[in-house]
Amino acid sequence: MTETQQTDAGVHHHRHTDDLLAHIKGLLEKQQLVSGLVERSEMPRHQLVQSLVERQQSNQLRQQINRMHPADIAFALESLPLEERSQLWDQVDRGHMGAVLVELSDGVRESILRDMGREDVMRAAWQLETDELADLLPQLPSHIIPELMESLEHLDREQVRTAASFPEHSVGALMDFDIVTVRVDNTLEVVLRFLRRRGELPEDSTLLMVVDRTGHLKGTLSLEALLVNEADTVVGDIMNPDPLAFHTDDPLEEAAAAFERYNLITAPVTNVHGQLLGCLNVEAVLEYVQEESKKDILAQAGLREEEDIFAPVLQSGRNRWPWLGLNLVIAFIASRIIGQFEDTIAQVVALAALLPITANVGGNAGNQAMALVIRSLALNQLNTSNFGRLLSKELAIGVMNGLIWGGIMAFATYLLYQRVDLAVIMLLAMVITLMVAALTGVLIPVSLKQAGHDPVLGSSILITGITDTLGFLIFLGLAAFILH
Amino acid sequence: MTETQQTDAGVHHHRHTDDLLAHIKGLLEKQQLVSGLVERSEMPRHQLVQSLVERQQSNQLRQQINRMHPADIAFALESLPLEERSQLWDQVDRGHMGAVLVELSDGVRESILRDMGREDVMRAAWQLETDELADLLPQLPSHIIPELMESLEHLDREQVRTAASFPEHSVGALMDFDIVTVRVDNTLEVVLRFLRRRGELPEDSTLLMVVDRTGHLKGTLSLEALLVNEADTVVGDIMNPDPLAFHTDDPLEEAAAAFERYNLITAPVTNVHGQLLGCLNVEAVLEYVQEESKKDILAQAGLREEEDIFAPVLQSGRNRWPWLGLNLVIAFIASRIIGQFEDTIAQVVALAALLPITANVGGNAGNQAMALVIRSLALNQLNTSNFGRLLSKELAIGVMNGLIWGGIMAFATYLLYQRVDLAVIMLLAMVITLMVAALTGVLIPVSLKQAGHDPVLGSSILITGITDTLGFLIFLGLAAFILH
Repeated sequence: MTETQQTDAGVHHHRHTDDLLAHIKGLLEKQQLVSGLVERSEMPRHQLVQSLVERQQSNQLRQQINRMHPADIAFALESLPLEERSQLWDQVDRGHMGAVLVELSDGVRESILRDMGREDVMRAAWQLETDELADLLPQLPSHIIPELMESLEHLDREQVRTAASFPEHSVGALMDFDIVTVRVDNTLEVVLRFLRRRGELPEDSTLLMVVDRTGHLKGTLSLEALLVNEADTVVGDIMNPDPLAFHTDDPLEEAAAAFERYNLITAPVTNVHGQLLGCLNVEAVLEYVQEESKKDILAQAGLREEEDIFAPVLQSGRNRWPWLGLNLVIAFIASRIIGQFEDTIAQVVALAALLPITANVGGNAGNQAMALVIRSLALNQLNTSNFGRLLSKELAIGVMNGLIWGGIMAFATYLLYQRVDLAVIMLLAMVITLMVAALTGVLIPVSLKQAGHDPVLGSSILITGITDTLGFLIFLGLAAFILH
Repeated sequence: MTETQQTDAGVHHHRHTDDLLAHIKGLLEKQQLVSGLVERSEMPRHQLVQSLVERQQSNQLRQQINRMHPADIAFALESLPLEERSQLWDQVDRGHMGAVLVELSDGVRESILRDMGREDVMRAAWQLETDELADLLPQLPSHIIPELMESLEHLDREQVRTAASFPEHSVGALMDFDIVTVRVDNTLEVVLRFLRRRGELPEDSTLLMVVDRTGHLKGTLSLEALLVNEADTVVGDIMNPDPLAFHTDDPLEEAAAAFERYNLITAPVTNVHGQLLGCLNVEAVLEYVQEESKKDILAQAGLREEEDIFAPVLQSGRNRWPWLGLNLVIAFIASRIIGQFEDTIAQVVALAALLPITANVGGNAGNQAMALVIRSLALNQLNTSNFGRLLSKELAIGVMNGLIWGGIMAFATYLLYQRVDLAVIMLLAMVITLMVAALTGVLIPVSLKQAGHDPVLGSSILITGITDTLGFLIFLGLAAFILH
């Protein structure tokens, strides 16, 4: 934080995003006003003066925009519809583009990269740290990549290659290469002299890494330890000799949980041989956690991709097809099941009206059980030893709630139709459906996870589809059995 | 981080929670084995020896458990069924209980506090920092609180009162009181001497706060600036004079977004007069974000409370009643709507089978639109100026997808029943239902937010209920109109 603020002196920070957006909109409106003036001024006499005045105003606006924090420009770009978005992007200095691109969400970044010229892309790429560039690489136009890689210095190119080779949700993918290393036998005086000569530390670093001659991690030294101890102290005596270090292939989810459990700010990252490669910083973890949390709600509804809310209709519509299609197939099966009972329904038409009740409540109960299971899975609290216990507990809740709400609905059914047999069907169907809902609510996310899938993706669609289908089958099956 | 690791030397950190749980289970099993031996040894002769041996083993296990990080003990407690949970809790040293309690989730903490004696609760409370204690306060047995507050020192009592007075999701509620302040005109030499005398910094602090005589925030000084500058430099020359500071009543959601945007690690917190009260640390923000993200999936299914997965059936069942009840009311209304069309259904029983298809697909499409809107609301990307644009875009997607999937279903309907009129009803119903689903998917979360509610809470239930009800009405209304 402080590092950014000190180097970017004069950059204004916004505590509230509403203010920020209002500010940007104000700037854009002024800009439009200014360019509006140009278009309207047809008089050749005044043209020169006009154009000078307006160029000056335009420059001021441009300066104001480029004095903003890159993350704020990125936020504004994401919140603006397409035309205003490209209008704002045109105002961003080329020297800033890299920093802004890094902060953008994938969907919006893609739309902006698509409209950028080759040269601008290259320039933006050169401004990035190697780990940031590696992150951006898959989205760059493929014909630019070889040339871009060629243009990097050897070490940078190697680092980009290394970072790009780690799978998406691994610690390696978010690792920062920029670290300061010291030796076990250094005195603090030597370290301090070294730091003063260096003049600055990597952004947001709170730890120096202690390594041996072969690059193996020996410990970490906090800035605090460096400050509160005497200058003749030896690093080895005050370092943390057993820091929690991650491997590049550790899953980010586990790393994020460890950061939260142990209140970590920076952690060293090593390869399997214990050689230090870089570090994982809490800001990267925080960003990861926030992105993932926003994705979960989308994933439940079967939207895998982060969607740009201002993407064209066709593109957004397509994004929703796969799960809508699956949903339609399930709904069609449900419809065919009802079709098998058309004779029964023809006899007692009231069944058609009562039909959706149990299925609907079952869907909700299933979603509730599933939400708890997904949460427990995310927290790693669910395992083979307590799985059976959880399943039987959910079944018991299903029976209990089935008796209570089924009883109420059975009573309502009796009041409406004055038929005991329909009331009994309603009660039994509700109990059985809620038990089935509990079963599916537990089993679907667990089996998805077992099969290596994200238990959240499409879970809400699957469970609603299955409880609907089975709910209809249970209700009509009971009706056919009892009424005949 | 490093602070914890240095002071808790010998505490083992676990990168993977699976290892951690296996480790705990192993310990508990050994413990059971040991206590099993006691119970089985009925021979008075050997009793003394046996009891000595087993007491020694038991002590070793106890030591092993108490050498674990409090957050790990908390995690294990949350993952264990009730009996094993209390067995593990019995092994926790009284001196550790406070630290473990702080790390527990609300539901599990409540179950443990319920079984603790007055004295143990008091002792645990005394071990906490004032902000942690304020956090715990609402869950403590009410008869203990006055006595506990009485037992605190004056300053601590005031801090607990202050912290407890902030609303739950405000910056004040997560603020840390433990800060180091320096003056603008101090030289770094003075600051360094002061820090060395102090011997340690508050846990995880990366910033010193610069204040004037009246306690007003003047700037922040990073540890880095302290390290890389010469000893005769004056604080005022190298401090960040315009740090992003939060107010105690800023919403945490906004603060978390700012931490992510600006990569903050520590930020000063002031009152409305600009007087420094404490700081907000990234660990607290990370914990908040992770907790909130886990709550969202629960909230969608209408589960407001964090539920202990091992809570008794009755308690868990009750937790689900309010929204299940609402769901039942909506389902009942839907049922009554179908009831109004019983004559039409009696004529063409196929309608009963086709009925759920449009409603079901509509529910899914509505959930997809809603998921995107909730995400945009959470990211503050949706506002009055782009709301209309988003709504018309979603409506256009509804029409497009309605024509595509409605067309497919109309064709299937024709194949099944060889009736053009049913196919036309299906197509029209699908287009209209998907438009209605888009409307509700956008309007429900936006209106909930406008009305000051959490747009996520129960959203999935509401949208499914409404699209079902309207889906039935649209399909049967069209059928009645076209078939008569």
